[in-house]
Amino acid sequence: MHLRKQRLLTPGPTPLYPPALHAMMAADLHHRTEEFRKVYRSCLADLKEVMGTSNDVLMFAASGTGAMDAAVSNLFSRGDKVVVCSAGKFGERWAEIAKAYGLEANVLTAPYGEVVTPGRVEAALAAEPAVKGVFVQASETSTGAMHDVRAMGQAVARTGAIFVVDAITGLGTMPLDIDGWGLDVTIGGSQKAFMIPPGLAFLSVSPKAWKMAETATLPHYYFNLKKEKKSGDAGESSWTPATAMILAMAEALRFIKQMGMAKLTENAQLLAEATRAAVRALGLELFAPGSPGSSVTAVKAPAGMDSSTIVKEFRNRFGAIIANGQGTMKGQIFRIAHLGYFDFADVFATVAALEIILNANGFSVQYGTGVAAAQQVYARAAVKPQP
Amino acid sequence: MHLRKQRLLTPGPTPLYPPALHAMMAADLHHRTEEFRKVYRSCLADLKEVMGTSNDVLMFAASGTGAMDAAVSNLFSRGDKVVVCSAGKFGERWAEIAKAYGLEANVLTAPYGEVVTPGRVEAALAAEPAVKGVFVQASETSTGAMHDVRAMGQAVARTGAIFVVDAITGLGTMPLDIDGWGLDVTIGGSQKAFMIPPGLAFLSVSPKAWKMAETATLPHYYFNLKKEKKSGDAGESSWTPATAMILAMAEALRFIKQMGMAKLTENAQLLAEATRAAVRALGLELFAPGSPGSSVTAVKAPAGMDSSTIVKEFRNRFGAIIANGQGTMKGQIFRIAHLGYFDFADVFATVAALEIILNANGFSVQYGTGVAAAQQVYARAAVKPQP
Repeated sequence: MHLRKQRLLTPGPTPLYPPALHAMMAADLHHRTEEFRKVYRSCLADLKEVMGTSNDVLMFAASGTGAMDAAVSNLFSRGDKVVVCSAGKFGERWAEIAKAYGLEANVLTAPYGEVVTPGRVEAALAAEPAVKGVFVQASETSTGAMHDVRAMGQAVARTGAIFVVDAITGLGTMPLDIDGWGLDVTIGGSQKAFMIPPGLAFLSVSPKAWKMAETATLPHYYFNLKKEKKSGDAGESSWTPATAMILAMAEALRFIKQMGMAKLTENAQLLAEATRAAVRALGLELFAPGSPGSSVTAVKAPAGMDSSTIVKEFRNRFGAIIANGQGTMKGQIFRIAHLGYFDFADVFATVAALEIILNANGFSVQYGTGVAAAQQVYARAAVKPQP
Repeated sequence: MHLRKQRLLTPGPTPLYPPALHAMMAADLHHRTEEFRKVYRSCLADLKEVMGTSNDVLMFAASGTGAMDAAVSNLFSRGDKVVVCSAGKFGERWAEIAKAYGLEANVLTAPYGEVVTPGRVEAALAAEPAVKGVFVQASETSTGAMHDVRAMGQAVARTGAIFVVDAITGLGTMPLDIDGWGLDVTIGGSQKAFMIPPGLAFLSVSPKAWKMAETATLPHYYFNLKKEKKSGDAGESSWTPATAMILAMAEALRFIKQMGMAKLTENAQLLAEATRAAVRALGLELFAPGSPGSSVTAVKAPAGMDSSTIVKEFRNRFGAIIANGQGTMKGQIFRIAHLGYFDFADVFATVAALEIILNANGFSVQYGTGVAAAQQVYARAAVKPQP
């Protein structure tokens, strides 16, 4: 055995920002105290700031799916007509939630690796004026593809429907003008670009969405947006909050504010570009070449090689955890993440490891070829040293 | 600003083993309890095991220099004749300690980057039979060079002198047969291959060294080997121990025992070999090509480039801390560490970063060339994936 550090290269959980991890140690505090209210309030305010919205932002002790559930159960009624964009595993999740709550969903599917075009959404809205909501993933984590939520948002805004965007891996990896583009609900999670462990979900709620909440009749208890809004205004959460997670979030948000959300996004975009360049230089094919997002890069395994082999080799040779394909894509693709606490050194090491793994498994590449392509991206981007 | 993770590539402090860091959080315990005695005893026993010696091993709340001081102040008397091998900044430290305590030192110097040969030690011992001790660095951290302590030990063993070896960066980076080679005192520190922060020093003491302690008359108080041996046998330290550090050490030693000290050493040797291969492939010169150790690789800056530029660029572009030359070598060389918690992914990333830095500062290299040379070392060493 040689030494192999554990390295998380997955699109959530992502690598942890160390000061956020250390902040969790201060969790011997009570949540119904002014001390904690101060932290909770600053968390909500900072989230609003980095999300760049004037909408309300609410937070739950839950994983991202909890906030997806909350959006449906608080804003809709049984039998409501909705449009679901489904281009991967998380699109399918929207369809499942809609079904669980008895919504009448028109599911617009696209094959894994492709996207649902804004034109199809527009057409669906035109065909059925009674549609109350449109659901989509900003970034479809299972395939690495990115939806055009800007154009979709503009189409939805012209109707009575609200636009509900799962931006769990979209936040911090792509520009998202929540207010300008009409993203009525925008959902995020802690274990993504926010660099802390899983356990917190949050969402922004627009006035148009709040209005829908007035007439919505689906049952809910834990995920109560109105109650949570009132609690949040008082610096509290309705139920017992995940205090250690909130402390971590406050610390991570301090860092993200200092760096700037736009710069964090640009960072993910650059690392994704470098990874795509490396992968192409090695003669591999991207899985979602048409609309590649920057949260994760999905790569097709070379012909005759199971992507599970590549995943296993990353772990066994380098202690690094990369993601396999999900669902039907398992064995077909592997995925390398860029969202949150990743830097160029991570990309260089990951690509060098990939070159070794490809060579060791019968797909011959020249050592250093992929790394050089990634280095070129660094150089072309004129990444400036920090004084 | 793009995202740059802090990366410690220095020969101490070295990167921290995360579970050891987490173990420090359990420091709300008292040091005069059976609970703590259990930890302290296991630490001493595990240290003995990984150092591979039957000699006593003692530990101090101190940095490595404390244990160097302890060896002199406990085992010698004012006016004692000693031989000091000095081939760098830490050899000079032995000479300073000898001077501070009034020893009569014959200092055998070698230029920075070279080593003192065993033949010179043998000759010095032959010329002065009254010599009571020989001092040396197993690995001279300031230059990256490695002394032949095996041959020196055999020469010293034939005399009445004791052999005092600063193995602070030697332990875990080179084979050291403490008992077989006659290393009467072997000194280590926590922040080196032991992967935890600075704050603990330890040393092994042979029967021959204990015998010298009987007649030694130099004054000392905190560093009292005899008292510490008695305390250690009772599972305690003489003075208040650095409890958090001991908890970290216990955790790190668990890992090192599991991996095996020989494998940890081999790991450093492989990473050093890969780094040397990369540096040569990039057309740079090693600083200590004759006796390169595996704790750290010292590299000459290209002609006309100050090594401080390279150090600064590593920090500014990649958040990585590498070491400059020390003393007169500052500006001449830079040093990249391999001891402790380093792996191949670290080397790949470091070399890719170095290539970018060289190119950006007027020393043109082909991207990927150095990385490929390091990858070749990985492949040639037939590093096997871990099932």
